[in-house]
Amino acid sequence: MDKINRLRLEMKKEDIDIYIVPTSDPHQSEYVSDHWKGREYLSGFTGSAGTLLVEADKAILWTDGRYFIQAENELKNSEIKLYRMGEKKYPSLKRYIRDALKNQKKIGIYGKLISISEFEDWIKDIDSSYYNIDLDLIDRIWVDRPKKPRTELFIHEEIYSGESTRDKLKRLREYMVEKEEHIHIVSSLDEIAYLFNLRANDIVNNPVFISYAVINKKEAILFTDAKYDENILKYSEEEGFIIRDISEFDKYLENIRLKNIGLDPNKTNMWIKEKLKFNKILYKPEILTEFESIRNKVQIENMKKTHIFDGVAVIKTLNYIYKNIENNITEMDVSEKLREFRSKIEGFIEPSFDTIAAYGPNGAMMHYCADADSNSVLKRENLLLIDSGGQYLSGTTDITRTISLGKTSDEQIRDYTLVLKGMINLSRAKFMEKTSGSTLDILARNYLWNEGIDYKSGTGHGVGYLLSVHLGNQRISPNARNSRFKPGMVVTNEPGVYKEGKYGIRIENMLLVRESSMKSDDEFLEFETLTLCPFDKTLIDFNLLNNDEIDFIEKYHMRIRELMKDYLTDEEMALIW
Amino acid sequence: MDKINRLRLEMKKEDIDIYIVPTSDPHQSEYVSDHWKGREYLSGFTGSAGTLLVEADKAILWTDGRYFIQAENELKNSEIKLYRMGEKKYPSLKRYIRDALKNQKKIGIYGKLISISEFEDWIKDIDSSYYNIDLDLIDRIWVDRPKKPRTELFIHEEIYSGESTRDKLKRLREYMVEKEEHIHIVSSLDEIAYLFNLRANDIVNNPVFISYAVINKKEAILFTDAKYDENILKYSEEEGFIIRDISEFDKYLENIRLKNIGLDPNKTNMWIKEKLKFNKILYKPEILTEFESIRNKVQIENMKKTHIFDGVAVIKTLNYIYKNIENNITEMDVSEKLREFRSKIEGFIEPSFDTIAAYGPNGAMMHYCADADSNSVLKRENLLLIDSGGQYLSGTTDITRTISLGKTSDEQIRDYTLVLKGMINLSRAKFMEKTSGSTLDILARNYLWNEGIDYKSGTGHGVGYLLSVHLGNQRISPNARNSRFKPGMVVTNEPGVYKEGKYGIRIENMLLVRESSMKSDDEFLEFETLTLCPFDKTLIDFNLLNNDEIDFIEKYHMRIRELMKDYLTDEEMALIW
Repeated sequence: MDKINRLRLEMKKEDIDIYIVPTSDPHQSEYVSDHWKGREYLSGFTGSAGTLLVEADKAILWTDGRYFIQAENELKNSEIKLYRMGEKKYPSLKRYIRDALKNQKKIGIYGKLISISEFEDWIKDIDSSYYNIDLDLIDRIWVDRPKKPRTELFIHEEIYSGESTRDKLKRLREYMVEKEEHIHIVSSLDEIAYLFNLRANDIVNNPVFISYAVINKKEAILFTDAKYDENILKYSEEEGFIIRDISEFDKYLENIRLKNIGLDPNKTNMWIKEKLKFNKILYKPEILTEFESIRNKVQIENMKKTHIFDGVAVIKTLNYIYKNIENNITEMDVSEKLREFRSKIEGFIEPSFDTIAAYGPNGAMMHYCADADSNSVLKRENLLLIDSGGQYLSGTTDITRTISLGKTSDEQIRDYTLVLKGMINLSRAKFMEKTSGSTLDILARNYLWNEGIDYKSGTGHGVGYLLSVHLGNQRISPNARNSRFKPGMVVTNEPGVYKEGKYGIRIENMLLVRESSMKSDDEFLEFETLTLCPFDKTLIDFNLLNNDEIDFIEKYHMRIRELMKDYLTDEEMALIW
Repeated sequence: MDKINRLRLEMKKEDIDIYIVPTSDPHQSEYVSDHWKGREYLSGFTGSAGTLLVEADKAILWTDGRYFIQAENELKNSEIKLYRMGEKKYPSLKRYIRDALKNQKKIGIYGKLISISEFEDWIKDIDSSYYNIDLDLIDRIWVDRPKKPRTELFIHEEIYSGESTRDKLKRLREYMVEKEEHIHIVSSLDEIAYLFNLRANDIVNNPVFISYAVINKKEAILFTDAKYDENILKYSEEEGFIIRDISEFDKYLENIRLKNIGLDPNKTNMWIKEKLKFNKILYKPEILTEFESIRNKVQIENMKKTHIFDGVAVIKTLNYIYKNIENNITEMDVSEKLREFRSKIEGFIEPSFDTIAAYGPNGAMMHYCADADSNSVLKRENLLLIDSGGQYLSGTTDITRTISLGKTSDEQIRDYTLVLKGMINLSRAKFMEKTSGSTLDILARNYLWNEGIDYKSGTGHGVGYLLSVHLGNQRISPNARNSRFKPGMVVTNEPGVYKEGKYGIRIENMLLVRESSMKSDDEFLEFETLTLCPFDKTLIDFNLLNNDEIDFIEKYHMRIRELMKDYLTDEEMALIW
């Protein structure tokens, strides 16, 4: 019997009408370890976002615009229906659940896999007899479920992080005093790794470790079952925190009484809230993510250096592709080459996400990742989209370039040029302090909209520092209303064109927000481009560019040549025209 | 004793620590009749927006960026402090009130002058013993307070409105059924005038009449004390509504029991809510404003014709100015001329707001209006900013042009050109359905931001149809997040530069939202420019314009010449270069 029907048997036993399987772990991580990939196990859909809902007579997967094409393919041979998020004809997951509850259906979900905010948004004013959050039904049916990861901690030295844990704890406690918090609880793995300047390898592409943290006036406790040595213990004493086994977290929570507890309802799961019922919970934003979003001087210097070597690796890979195009190299060869060149860079740890090397029609799938079945051989035609990044001790990178492998159509050249214009004009923007990402978005999208083309995604996202490649609130998107830019933030700039069955184009640079030197009565900000890699000259229609845009490209390439001349061969240098 | 101290005596009598005087009437109108100009009477500040707060030892006026300079001037010789809204160093009115309440201060405000939403936003979870909303203290101290207006109703014929009241009531009742409303209460004078296709002259520049309306399944009742004749009575019978004296409204509300009542908390005052306490109130958006925001075919055709003749009046005025510049004409002469030319147009009723004819430094005051003291004589130098509009049976206009009267500086030419670029590029935008005004704003602001210049206002606002010149939600501004554009909406496009003590530049066109003819997989919208009036060639630096912008100007002027050739003299035609 197939997995979904086995799940249905368990649902019957527990008298559950609807069981929900989110893409999540107990820390609401964006990328989860294999142990928590229940949605993928059940549905076969491999995207990084989506929620599966199973009923006796139907199964539905919700996912967003990035994954529409991919999900269609991966669900082709299953009973699961795809509900495209944001499209009118499909009810939202919330709507669907609210209606089901109206019809007296009983909902089951494992409380560790759902955030407080999302769950309470669903069930507000619903009688608790209509849901059960204690059931990990996936665990019952999952044959050979992967173990929870348990890797070795290492210290992210201050020469890389730029601020000691002791100082970060001091800042956090000042915040707690101001907000009248007695205890601050952290569930987000990124925030914990940031706070303690520790990293490990529990999640692929994201060097965090399974843990929780509790900070009060006197103590800072890190609950984890990661491995660590004497050296780490000594470090924890110096920095003023204690390490305890994660199995003690449960009991610790149960013993808290009558305290003001600060936590982030978006990053904390329902199970934790249950444990804290005898306390006053103060819902707080991800304060540590806010800390991390503003890079310090040391980090900024490190990021700038890192982008030189990361760019060198990408250029060497491009050169490899051009030279070997006749040798039947594949998308996966390209990913492999990128990793090979990056792994030679000092401080490289792993890719920051699964490389997207998408040839021709595959490029139209925003988050395509080649596997044995899909892996295409490159030919002297059409476009190759390469979106990749690295995790370095000195920061995280995220870069996309799209190149022509030979024959290109006028349509491809026009589309590439429009994407480039948008990318450049957003990079050149000057904007008032507190301008939101929803205001800036159209600077990148405008040129495509004028030709009736839209991309079904935001234009940019924040980037972690040796942490998740997606960070915080500083997004650029028509909906990024709370995204207010401040100096020291880092954001990507990645407009694109995606033509199903034909090709995909995306150009992505990372940008640093800084104060503008411009004379003004107001406070103005501007971007500094961190990513260093040339554009594909053969894809540009220079008639569509104005002088400012051409000037931007020339200065940008000049800067790249200057910074890379010692690391590239003449052949490779020639790619920077 | 001065007015504010007389108010303080009354406050003492009533044991009130803080008395708040908003700029409002019982209908939450933006422009209020003289009877309700208590804030102006007390403070001397004549702007159209602002709230006065009086305490035993201080008096504070809050107003927004449009009025900072004007308020500074008008408050110069008073004890009243100006709190600039939106600037960090000043607490917001809400913040101020919340703090006062924390300190056990007792707040007084007249409940008819404050909307349900705003008041409840202030006092949420505050014990009612800390405020009193029954005191019209202004009335006690106001010597010779102007009477409430009482003007004559006239019918806005269907050839102008494009939809009968009977049909509008039908649409409204369909909405009420859907929302499970038993009774819908309307307080907004604009919405009432729109619904019943009636107008009068109770408020200067805004042809509405003091009234309330109540709609249920069977009845539609218009409560008003406006004057009307047999003809109107007959009309009301034909269209299916009843007219009753406004004095009966009070009693009518008190007799409502156990009903679902739909009303707009932003447009309905606290006094009404008190009367309805035995009912369930459903807070609804301004549904009738939404109806009005989408223009029908008849209205669109009327607006287009109206803008030809309105533009003719403006061009004739400009020509008059150029010819008489040596004759010591003043700002007020310009306003007078505009009215004179407009009054010759069929269907003209009155200006749609007090004309802003602002010469030189006066132009830096966004909402300046010349009076006997300020009235400047025009000279052969500097800039003249003219912002004006008309109320016509066939629609409402709002246009701004800035012209050079002689010598101009490079700075003025650059600023004018940057404003023009922004105005043009927003006019040319194509955008996805449901794009918000906060996304579009930067298309007009971008060119100024790139030079470190910002204007402290939104870029555009909706416009009524023989109603208030400010309508609804369809604003263009970094904060206009709920402003989603739909075909048939009308919005202004008015970027500007305001340099205190030097000059002001604003260029304003009205735009109609329509579906784009562009081929696309998505639904795209675009703007059609309604306003017809040339730009000042002597203020344009053509080196700063690209071909698209020059092309826009040429086509626009060509269109104006074609449409106006029969109505202008050769001399006037020559202004359309």
